Amino acid sequence: MGNSYGKIFRITTFGESHGPAIGVVIDGCPAGLSIDETFIQSELTRRKPGQSRITTQRKEDDTLKVLSGVFDGVSTGMPIALTIDNQDQRSKDYSHIAETFRPSHADYTYEKKYGIRDYRGGGRSSARETAARVAAGAVAKLLLRDSGIAIHAYVSQVGEIKAPHYTTLDLARTEHNIIRCPDTTTAEKMIALIEQVRLERDTVGGIVTCVIRNTPVGLGEPVFEKLHAELGKAMLSINAVKGFEYGSGFEGIKMRGSQHNDAFYNEGGTIRTKTNHSGGIQGGISNGEDIYFNVAFKPVATIMQDQESVDREGNAVTVSGKGRHDPCVVPRAVPIVEAMAALVMADFLLQSKSARVK
Amino acid sequence: MGNSYGKIFRITTFGESHGPAIGVVIDGCPAGLSIDETFIQSELTRRKPGQSRITTQRKEDDTLKVLSGVFDGVSTGMPIALTIDNQDQRSKDYSHIAETFRPSHADYTYEKKYGIRDYRGGGRSSARETAARVAAGAVAKLLLRDSGIAIHAYVSQVGEIKAPHYTTLDLARTEHNIIRCPDTTTAEKMIALIEQVRLERDTVGGIVTCVIRNTPVGLGEPVFEKLHAELGKAMLSINAVKGFEYGSGFEGIKMRGSQHNDAFYNEGGTIRTKTNHSGGIQGGISNGEDIYFNVAFKPVATIMQDQESVDREGNAVTVSGKGRHDPCVVPRAVPIVEAMAALVMADFLLQSKSARVK
Amino acid sequence: MGNSYGKIFRITTFGESHGPAIGVVIDGCPAGLSIDETFIQSELTRRKPGQSRITTQRKEDDTLKVLSGVFDGVSTGMPIALTIDNQDQRSKDYSHIAETFRPSHADYTYEKKYGIRDYRGGGRSSARETAARVAAGAVAKLLLRDSGIAIHAYVSQVGEIKAPHYTTLDLARTEHNIIRCPDTTTAEKMIALIEQVRLERDTVGGIVTCVIRNTPVGLGEPVFEKLHAELGKAMLSINAVKGFEYGSGFEGIKMRGSQHNDAFYNEGGTIRTKTNHSGGIQGGISNGEDIYFNVAFKPVATIMQDQESVDREGNAVTVSGKGRHDPCVVPRAVPIVEAMAALVMADFLLQSKSARVK
Amino acid sequence: MGNSYGKIFRITTFGESHGPAIGVVIDGCPAGLSIDETFIQSELTRRKPGQSRITTQRKEDDTLKVLSGVFDGVSTGMPIALTIDNQDQRSKDYSHIAETFRPSHADYTYEKKYGIRDYRGGGRSSARETAARVAAGAVAKLLLRDSGIAIHAYVSQVGEIKAPHYTTLDLARTEHNIIRCPDTTTAEKMIALIEQVRLERDTVGGIVTCVIRNTPVGLGEPVFEKLHAELGKAMLSINAVKGFEYGSGFEGIKMRGSQHNDAFYNEGGTIRTKTNHSGGIQGGISNGEDIYFNVAFKPVATIMQDQESVDREGNAVTVSGKGRHDPCVVPRAVPIVEAMAALVMADFLLQSKSARVK
Repeated sequence: MGNSYGKIFRITTFGESHGPAIGVVIDGCPAGLSIDETFIQSELTRRKPGQSRITTQRKEDDTLKVLSGVFDGVSTGMPIALTIDNQDQRSKDYSHIAETFRPSHADYTYEKKYGIRDYRGGGRSSARETAARVAAGAVAKLLLRDSGIAIHAYVSQVGEIKAPHYTTLDLARTEHNIIRCPDTTTAEKMIALIEQVRLERDTVGGIVTCVIRNTPVGLGEPVFEKLHAELGKAMLSINAVKGFEYGSGFEGIKMRGSQHNDAFYNEGGTIRTKTNHSGGIQGGISNGEDIYFNVAFKPVATIMQDQESVDREGNAVTVSGKGRHDPCVVPRAVPIVEAMAALVMADFLLQSKSARVK
Repeated sequence: MGNSYGKIFRITTFGESHGPAIGVVIDGCPAGLSIDETFIQSELTRRKPGQSRITTQRKEDDTLKVLSGVFDGVSTGMPIALTIDNQDQRSKDYSHIAETFRPSHADYTYEKKYGIRDYRGGGRSSARETAARVAAGAVAKLLLRDSGIAIHAYVSQVGEIKAPHYTTLDLARTEHNIIRCPDTTTAEKMIALIEQVRLERDTVGGIVTCVIRNTPVGLGEPVFEKLHAELGKAMLSINAVKGFEYGSGFEGIKMRGSQHNDAFYNEGGTIRTKTNHSGGIQGGISNGEDIYFNVAFKPVATIMQDQESVDREGNAVTVSGKGRHDPCVVPRAVPIVEAMAALVMADFLLQSKSARVK
Repeated sequence: MGNSYGKIFRITTFGESHGPAIGVVIDGCPAGLSIDETFIQSELTRRKPGQSRITTQRKEDDTLKVLSGVFDGVSTGMPIALTIDNQDQRSKDYSHIAETFRPSHADYTYEKKYGIRDYRGGGRSSARETAARVAAGAVAKLLLRDSGIAIHAYVSQVGEIKAPHYTTLDLARTEHNIIRCPDTTTAEKMIALIEQVRLERDTVGGIVTCVIRNTPVGLGEPVFEKLHAELGKAMLSINAVKGFEYGSGFEGIKMRGSQHNDAFYNEGGTIRTKTNHSGGIQGGISNGEDIYFNVAFKPVATIMQDQESVDREGNAVTVSGKGRHDPCVVPRAVPIVEAMAALVMADFLLQSKSARVK
Repeated sequence: MGNSYGKIFRITTFGESHGPAIGVVIDGCPAGLSIDETFIQSELTRRKPGQSRITTQRKEDDTLKVLSGVFDGVSTGMPIALTIDNQDQRSKDYSHIAETFRPSHADYTYEKKYGIRDYRGGGRSSARETAARVAAGAVAKLLLRDSGIAIHAYVSQVGEIKAPHYTTLDLARTEHNIIRCPDTTTAEKMIALIEQVRLERDTVGGIVTCVIRNTPVGLGEPVFEKLHAELGKAMLSINAVKGFEYGSGFEGIKMRGSQHNDAFYNEGGTIRTKTNHSGGIQGGISNGEDIYFNVAFKPVATIMQDQESVDREGNAVTVSGKGRHDPCVVPRAVPIVEAMAALVMADFLLQSKSARVK
């Protein structure tokens, strides 16, 4: 269990880092949607390893295969199965982890929970799994496009280096640099930090900020499935995420209600708010303003240094840093955050169709 | 939709602030559990309004009724329906909001989504709904008790005032003061701040920290239903919550991987970690260390001041502060956070029973 | 688990035969539906015990209470909780079954599965539970009414006595007699048989046939959730049901494909079929023709005779016939079959809203 | 939606008749199960086309590929993805159905529901989809094997020709002939009838009976998810099924309660029933006796004759019999019925693990 997300637009992912393939089945994509495979592939390419000097050098083409659910380029309402073959598996690189538990990885917990684990490249717990999310998220983006909903994520912090607030940035510039921060000056500092961290054979964390624009009023459900609760779950389900906040977030706790409340006003017939501490969501339901949230990523657990640990029998061992990994996960996390946001929004968009009798 | 939580231990809540009753149906509680009604009532009493000078003066006894699923004091495996009658409804107090949208409340979004809303006391969007969660959470706590899992929440921050780190506190002291902060000195400052804010007819936010102890290794599911993803969703579903972080959280992003990784060691046959930046969860699955997380609550939206807004026709109006509300939600949020944590853990505990063939 | 039905229009029932109340929570009823409580009550009255000389003499008013989700007579999109207090509980009547297992009842299986059972009146396994289904089904009927979908069930067989095929009957006459068979001659024979069986202190089975008219083309989902598969599940979930068939059913197996196939033709711009062996469903999806199906009910297990059985320790015992029960369940099953059909159709109607992009 | 089945042992199938592949993802298979691929392949081979003179001559090897979830031959608790490439697609054969609706097929309903359909070989509505069920069902059988639960299906009726009651048959003989009827004399008559029907370019229906032995007491859930309700849904979801009955079934309605009730007795410490009209299920929960049920299959809709129909514009057309199809579906349906039964039982077996606190 745990490998599905969504109620109506529902995805199920599968596959291990070093198995033959990873993939996803989308059940509940409405019929009649043009499935632009070039777009889906471009999203996969944004996430794939080896795309710049600050990401892992693992080589994967991440080539999309569409197995079902699309006919003459259009969705048929049937399940859409997408797979991506694994290529650069190098199983030998990982044989040393069969008997030992890497610190702050899932080795120990998987072993204890299941009694067995596919230790090759982290198996199912590898971030490689997120490629399937990106493929499904690309289909969700195609669905949202018709409703005008647009999702933009970018890197807003690496270590201590922060970008200015999103409202001051041109988010269209996100893809202009390899760190995916739309502010050039900040981007250069972030890149320099990551390069330094890489030389230190270490890793560093960061924040991805995501902004969702043009959401109609009314997405999200009351009580347990508030829009931000599902966004939070979706983001926290991404590997290495440690925190989620939306709107005023953790800073908002220091404010007074009189400062924090977003006054309504009438802007040419549309009800809007003067401020947006609510982050576009009130009572768990979108109010038409920008939805924005931050996602905190810890420093990647795989470092190129020796670390203390134990083996399966509990003996003290040294885990050596080997393999090919990212010194900072956030640039490649940008399309993953967007994909998960798209999956949440697409599902709520479809759910909203039955909110009223007419 | 949106009114249910859980896969096996599954709850569905219902009821509006000023309807005849609120309640919850628990489907999936295993048979054979002693249902201690006195304990459930005591949890409701921890949450109920009017319990101290820093909470709302609305009067509700919040008396538990058990309608089904319990026989001779023991769960039968059938749905357990619990209700709480509403008493102090004072519908007149709220008639002024029928035509206007209170800032940063759910009035506008509910109206637009559903075309109709029960405006009496906020209807379903009222925090009164959380009483049903507390009742169900109390049953979940009874279930967890057998496994030794213990959940402690407390107020760790109000406005700018912070308590020390949980590892330095005696959490058993949480109920010793009305703010529910186990550190007496901090508690006094917090209470003073809230009293001042109340005099200013304003509100302030805060943080509830929750610590879960004695969790067995292996709770949580891979990929979309990681333990912290479900905890995050559960917390973000509580009214007024703006953020969630676990383990090192947002601070962790500034660390290097070499600092952040939790080294394993063997403590008398038990595999443990020297530090716990992971917050007791690795790969989405509990590792046996303390699980701890922070939940950020915004300042309550209802303030005793005049505010600008619009009515249903979009005309500018002034919303006056009326009614009985909390100047700070966090002391009453403590049992709610615990209840939601208990519901998440109980569900994963039951899910874990089918993780392995034997 | 097992106490919920539906994906979007989702109900959860609760309550035991002799507990304080039974009830249902409907989550997912669209907002804006007029909730005609008089109609819901009239459906409950059709099902309630003691309504004629051929049904049980247990006295229950089955008075509806609406706890939530309705405001000014209209659904708000929030969960609708409906309860019915139990009145004529007579717990003393049933104390004799605490220690023994009644033949062909659920006593033994509940006891073994759960280790405990509420033996008063059969507890949760009592057909009293179906009152909650009828209440929820009445709300579903209100939702279907707008789409023109009409559901008619009637008694088509008692023991060996069969009514003519539905296409020859005026289904509007169903409520004209106490057996609920629209053919007067057959109805009289059925009633005579049941009265005879009652005198013999015995029970007899029967069939309820259900016809659903004016269904739009396109309800039902492919593969596992075919329209007839969900109808079948819904019917088989009713107490005492042993079989389900739709369209040509079990008789259809003897036909040749060339006889059985329903030829399409164009009737004034509407595509129709000349015959309807398909029962209005092709590929699991409604085709616009009448949907019709048969539901087989076994003879009621409670008989007024001594029967051999065993007690909880496995000792041979005699179970005496006591209490107040129906000699034949089918007349009171008619509104239950309709209710379950309505729940299935309402859910598929809402699901169909997301079948296409536009 | 509609392409998933199960709560804990949950499968999602995908793929069209003439797309590149069909497949299934199993989420929730417990870790530690030996995945015998040879056995899964043998089940696929039992279902595959072209296996005898009374089945379709379409050629498909139906070769299993395991993409994930298995490591060193053992399940890891991760999703198990299984695919089967389509080989003998002959798309040209089906081009004539692009514009016309074949009688009693899903062409019309899919077209109207989705606005588009993959008409090649029936697309998703083809019985080819059941291969994915058989693959998943084989994994379920492996899981059940440990609990001793054994599932046997066989052909009990073709047209008017019926086999004797299952209790008089040696079910181990089912695979001894191409019709899969364990009674040799009946089998020969059935085969002769099918050969005659084939010569007449027609088709005929039949019944598959299924017997499940050695089920522990306690599988199945109360109310909506009774064991027989889920079995019924699972069977009715198979292409061409028109009816389901268990235990005494439709015949039982003619009996008196005093005949129908199954008296309990103590057989060497085990509580058993003298008769088994209940079909091994009481109150929706298994009682340890044989579970048995009948599944009615209509005559296959594809016949080698000209038939009247309409095209997409509603014009009258003649549909000519072409392609390669089965004159009677029941011999190949036997492994499908078993697969669906195994999926139901495996899911309930896992669900039962949380029925009691201990």
